[in-house]
Amino acid sequence: MADPPPATVDLIRAKRDGRTLTGDEVRWLIDAYTRGEVADEQMSALLMAIFFRGLAPAELREWTAAMIASGERLDLSTVGRPTVDKHSTGGVGDKVSLILAPLVAACGAAVPQLSGRGLGHTGGTLDKLEAIPGWRATLSPAEMIELLRTVGAVICAAGAGLAPADRKLYALRDVTGTVESIPLIASSIMSKKIAEGTSALVLDVKVGSGAFMTELGSARELAETMVMIGSEAGVRTSALLTAMDAPLGRAVGNALEVEESLAVLRGGGPADLVEVTLALAREMLALAGIDADPAAALADGRALEVYRAMIAGQGGDPDAELPAAAVTDVVRAPATGWLRRLDARAVGVAAWRLGAGRARKEDPVSAAAGILCRAKPGERVEAGQPLLELRADRASVLPGAHAALSDAVEIGSERPAAGPLIIDRVS
Amino acid sequence: MADPPPATVDLIRAKRDGRTLTGDEVRWLIDAYTRGEVADEQMSALLMAIFFRGLAPAELREWTAAMIASGERLDLSTVGRPTVDKHSTGGVGDKVSLILAPLVAACGAAVPQLSGRGLGHTGGTLDKLEAIPGWRATLSPAEMIELLRTVGAVICAAGAGLAPADRKLYALRDVTGTVESIPLIASSIMSKKIAEGTSALVLDVKVGSGAFMTELGSARELAETMVMIGSEAGVRTSALLTAMDAPLGRAVGNALEVEESLAVLRGGGPADLVEVTLALAREMLALAGIDADPAAALADGRALEVYRAMIAGQGGDPDAELPAAAVTDVVRAPATGWLRRLDARAVGVAAWRLGAGRARKEDPVSAAAGILCRAKPGERVEAGQPLLELRADRASVLPGAHAALSDAVEIGSERPAAGPLIIDRVS
Repeated sequence: MADPPPATVDLIRAKRDGRTLTGDEVRWLIDAYTRGEVADEQMSALLMAIFFRGLAPAELREWTAAMIASGERLDLSTVGRPTVDKHSTGGVGDKVSLILAPLVAACGAAVPQLSGRGLGHTGGTLDKLEAIPGWRATLSPAEMIELLRTVGAVICAAGAGLAPADRKLYALRDVTGTVESIPLIASSIMSKKIAEGTSALVLDVKVGSGAFMTELGSARELAETMVMIGSEAGVRTSALLTAMDAPLGRAVGNALEVEESLAVLRGGGPADLVEVTLALAREMLALAGIDADPAAALADGRALEVYRAMIAGQGGDPDAELPAAAVTDVVRAPATGWLRRLDARAVGVAAWRLGAGRARKEDPVSAAAGILCRAKPGERVEAGQPLLELRADRASVLPGAHAALSDAVEIGSERPAAGPLIIDRVS
Repeated sequence: MADPPPATVDLIRAKRDGRTLTGDEVRWLIDAYTRGEVADEQMSALLMAIFFRGLAPAELREWTAAMIASGERLDLSTVGRPTVDKHSTGGVGDKVSLILAPLVAACGAAVPQLSGRGLGHTGGTLDKLEAIPGWRATLSPAEMIELLRTVGAVICAAGAGLAPADRKLYALRDVTGTVESIPLIASSIMSKKIAEGTSALVLDVKVGSGAFMTELGSARELAETMVMIGSEAGVRTSALLTAMDAPLGRAVGNALEVEESLAVLRGGGPADLVEVTLALAREMLALAGIDADPAAALADGRALEVYRAMIAGQGGDPDAELPAAAVTDVVRAPATGWLRRLDARAVGVAAWRLGAGRARKEDPVSAAAGILCRAKPGERVEAGQPLLELRADRASVLPGAHAALSDAVEIGSERPAAGPLIIDRVS
């Protein structure tokens, strides 16, 4: 390889002009960037060129492999059960992981779920679980494997040793307008999931106003790209495309979502949340080669038992009271009729402004803040009835939340057509 | 304006997605980048987005104006003559400025030529003149204006105060693969020329293997873009598209080109060099509103007189011996026939390797190194006759030069068709 500076600019120009980079070139770029030899301003120009030119399948495979090779790869072969994980591209009220990990573990799999924190209008699984007194997100690889052996499910933060190139690249993409690239999103997600060592993976690709992908076409392309990367890396991978036009379930906010998850684990909870959770559970069990009925494991309390052990195993008290909000407010129905739309994104932004989310990754979040949806699209409402309950730690955040909700609700005289929750499956 | 970091990423995304930036947005970006508030990695992502999306006419005008506004603008109103300048996009053997500036001054105009140094296979006017003992490229604005008043021509380096945003942006483009963008090239050239204060400007846009633009279509687009920017900024601007498939004249290298320029100023020299120089001189005089025949000023020695005064005015000794090469070598004709092709780029790269050019802007150049073309395309050659004379300071550089020339020459049995030197005019 020639001197790095000319080589780097030549590779940027090659990608810019539509040439497919070789495996050696991709590996050199990712490795040199991780070591600080390729400068941020060069990598950001390359990322923008990738935004416009995409990555060919071979480039994408090498790009993902190079990010995995930048750090350690966990070995889960000693956990004694088939491993299977789930990743969601993020939505509003998406607390599925809290139910799904113990549910699938209760059916005999090991679920090594490395999760993230929320940013913007979508929540993060770790933020939700941190509403539980004592619960901690950080585990060593040894603790994680021990919990997978004994409890079968773990939800924790990805260690700094996992795909450090992705961590550095993501921070750069965030400030350079290069987040919204399907190959870059797909390789970012998949590098972490493959490095985590799971044998199988189900992707929940959300589509709709509250999702990262608002269009079905892009969501399908992202799903297909991730399934291709996983399969080529030897991880059995499939994806469900699921609807995210309204919040999933009725609770949006950290402690509120823990409570709603418990309701599902106790055999109740909102029908849409149960439907999406069971569809993902069936998909995961099929990939893990386990013939079991997850609905039964919810109904008979086995999933709840695993949940309690999982929370306790990470220092949490499953019986502790969750933080309660100091301030509440309500949004009432402006008319009588059918609730035709309850915009997921608007509700997500409002919950974020109430304190449930963060604008920057170093900001704290409120455990108690959030929104309870007292009606969902397809339900009949009376003028003046409470539609949304707002919860916050202080009254000063209420006006911002109301402003975010100003156009969130549509009430009409015709009952809305109900679209499918599970839109499609990609494998 | 919101907090700078979110604003910057929003502007990058807007440009990326094809939105036209407003004047306020462009001014803010250039100003904040010059002050270091917009980071290099953000600007390089924006530049790559501009590579793909281009700049709309209004954006381009604002972008150029913001680069001019980042520094000082010279006031040439006191020089007492119509001011007119020329800019060449760069070619091999392009020593036109050395002849043209004194020639046009001899006809009554003032020529405030701010020039650059060579990089890669194209030479720089300042490097050529620095082959003259004592000559210095750096003048204060006051010295420059005084020479324009007394001599009428000056060729010097642009001061650091002129368009500093362009200086910073160009250095970034150089390492991030974002040089080859017509709006960015056009705004870079024109910001410096407009800031220099000339009233009129003729652009020599080179087309062919030895030029930055190898395709006529791109060269025409660049010419039209620069003419538009100049005209909108109140500078009378036109462009000639001229051929750069073979070296211009017969000399390539710093001292060699000074000698060939002197031959033209004495009324001789290669016909192609004279033709291009006179065409540009007529264009400049027309824009300056001066009715004079430049051919007469060449023939009667007036241009040579101004040249000698211009060199002396910048500390140079016009009668001094120029540095001579320690080593010479020769490339001979491999066959008898018509010289059909003498590739400008290959000759430029070979001269660079001999020491006449530089790979990085901090590298020194050799005054004596270079190539003399003993035959030009369209001439008859005999097998074994010298085609190219190589000059260098040391023998170790010869093999690299020969390698660069391995495919530079084509000899055939048919006389090649002679294309026009002056391909088109844009105004």
